[in-house]
Amino acid sequence: MRFASEASFDGVCEQLFTLGEIPGVLWTPAGAAGTRPLILMGHGGGQHKKAPGIVARARNFVAECGFAVAAVDVPGHGDRPKDEEYDRIATENRARVDAGEELAPLVAGFQALVARQTVPEWRAVLDAVQGLDHVGTGPVGYWGVSLGCGLGVPFVAAEPRVGAAVLGLGGALASAEAAARITVPVEFLVQWDDERVPRAQSLALFEALASAEKTLHANPGKHGEIPAFELDSTLRFFARHLG
Amino acid sequence: MRFASEASFDGVCEQLFTLGEIPGVLWTPAGAAGTRPLILMGHGGGQHKKAPGIVARARNFVAECGFAVAAVDVPGHGDRPKDEEYDRIATENRARVDAGEELAPLVAGFQALVARQTVPEWRAVLDAVQGLDHVGTGPVGYWGVSLGCGLGVPFVAAEPRVGAAVLGLGGALASAEAAARITVPVEFLVQWDDERVPRAQSLALFEALASAEKTLHANPGKHGEIPAFELDSTLRFFARHLG
Repeated sequence: MRFASEASFDGVCEQLFTLGEIPGVLWTPAGAAGTRPLILMGHGGGQHKKAPGIVARARNFVAECGFAVAAVDVPGHGDRPKDEEYDRIATENRARVDAGEELAPLVAGFQALVARQTVPEWRAVLDAVQGLDHVGTGPVGYWGVSLGCGLGVPFVAAEPRVGAAVLGLGGALASAEAAARITVPVEFLVQWDDERVPRAQSLALFEALASAEKTLHANPGKHGEIPAFELDSTLRFFARHLG
Repeated sequence: MRFASEASFDGVCEQLFTLGEIPGVLWTPAGAAGTRPLILMGHGGGQHKKAPGIVARARNFVAECGFAVAAVDVPGHGDRPKDEEYDRIATENRARVDAGEELAPLVAGFQALVARQTVPEWRAVLDAVQGLDHVGTGPVGYWGVSLGCGLGVPFVAAEPRVGAAVLGLGGALASAEAAARITVPVEFLVQWDDERVPRAQSLALFEALASAEKTLHANPGKHGEIPAFELDSTLRFFARHLG
């Protein structure tokens, strides 16, 4: 794990790093020492580790709760090189949608493929970040919606360190089988008028989670329009389960 | 409006009152003076104005937010006399369910009938309670689930003073038309395994609300098993919209 830069602003320290070929960012309270809860965040499709919705939430988790937060670029996103195979599939999928195929199953299949790479990558990131003195091996949470849900469900199912997860804007097509292996508390976000994920698919993914404590929050609006007040709820969810 | 008794405990003052033939209770901060937000609470079927789930939430709204809270007995409940007509219909409905009819439409029809009485009663309660010096004409909220939702939807639709409402455990059969006239922010509680309200009916009632801001919270469990952490969310919802 190599650190490239470090900057603090408003009490939050931001460190850019690479772990092998994976570019990442770590946010911690400025001057932090000792063990603390860690939240891994998965960004959305076409976004990257420092997309505005990631940065704003990460800074809040650090400032309000004293947590550490890490995010890395998904293959083919952000500072990672283009991936020939993923590009080819994405191009193919666009053509299939133009020809009248349904979007959701194609997206689901694509996410399941990428997850085969990101699950081991993200586990390695947890190992490395928890090895740092100012993070340590405390409780772990996961936050990810849309692509971050499609990749997050198999990750949370596979990684026993994750004790609570915020997921959403995703459907059951790709990940119902993995969801059935998730037993930790989940807060699940649904956009009621989601133009990308059919409502029935969202509800089916929530249904598939094996967690005894799972809570679905649905709000009007399209895929990208999660209301601001859900951040407050997310903070309290993580504080309740990891704090 | 006549007050029968007054007692304070843990900083919360509880006053029993009658308004005409309606027995009620008012909770306010001990020693309160001046105008404050008021929440009217509607109890569940077979319950009453001081049912444990009402009292616990009311005391929290007062202690955490400084609000006033009022609850009254629904006709045929608590300290009110038996209502011959309602009793006859309830007995008939039990027989019809035993004979194989669906429960939900019968409950919906019954609640619509009772609402024709409770809507004007509750508006009179608001008038009277807001006339008190230590309550005044501040913002108004409504909280009610199950019967409190069946009666609450037509009340919130009819009463322009209500600026935010928590509803839930209710279906669209009786109240979709009234729900379509509700435009204030709503937090809507669904129990995912509700044995009394079919899930599709719950989601249809949420769908029917015309509110630009409405948020659905669904949790696993049966009709009576709303998880404790929803109280915290309710407090923050009312604080956001009435505080």
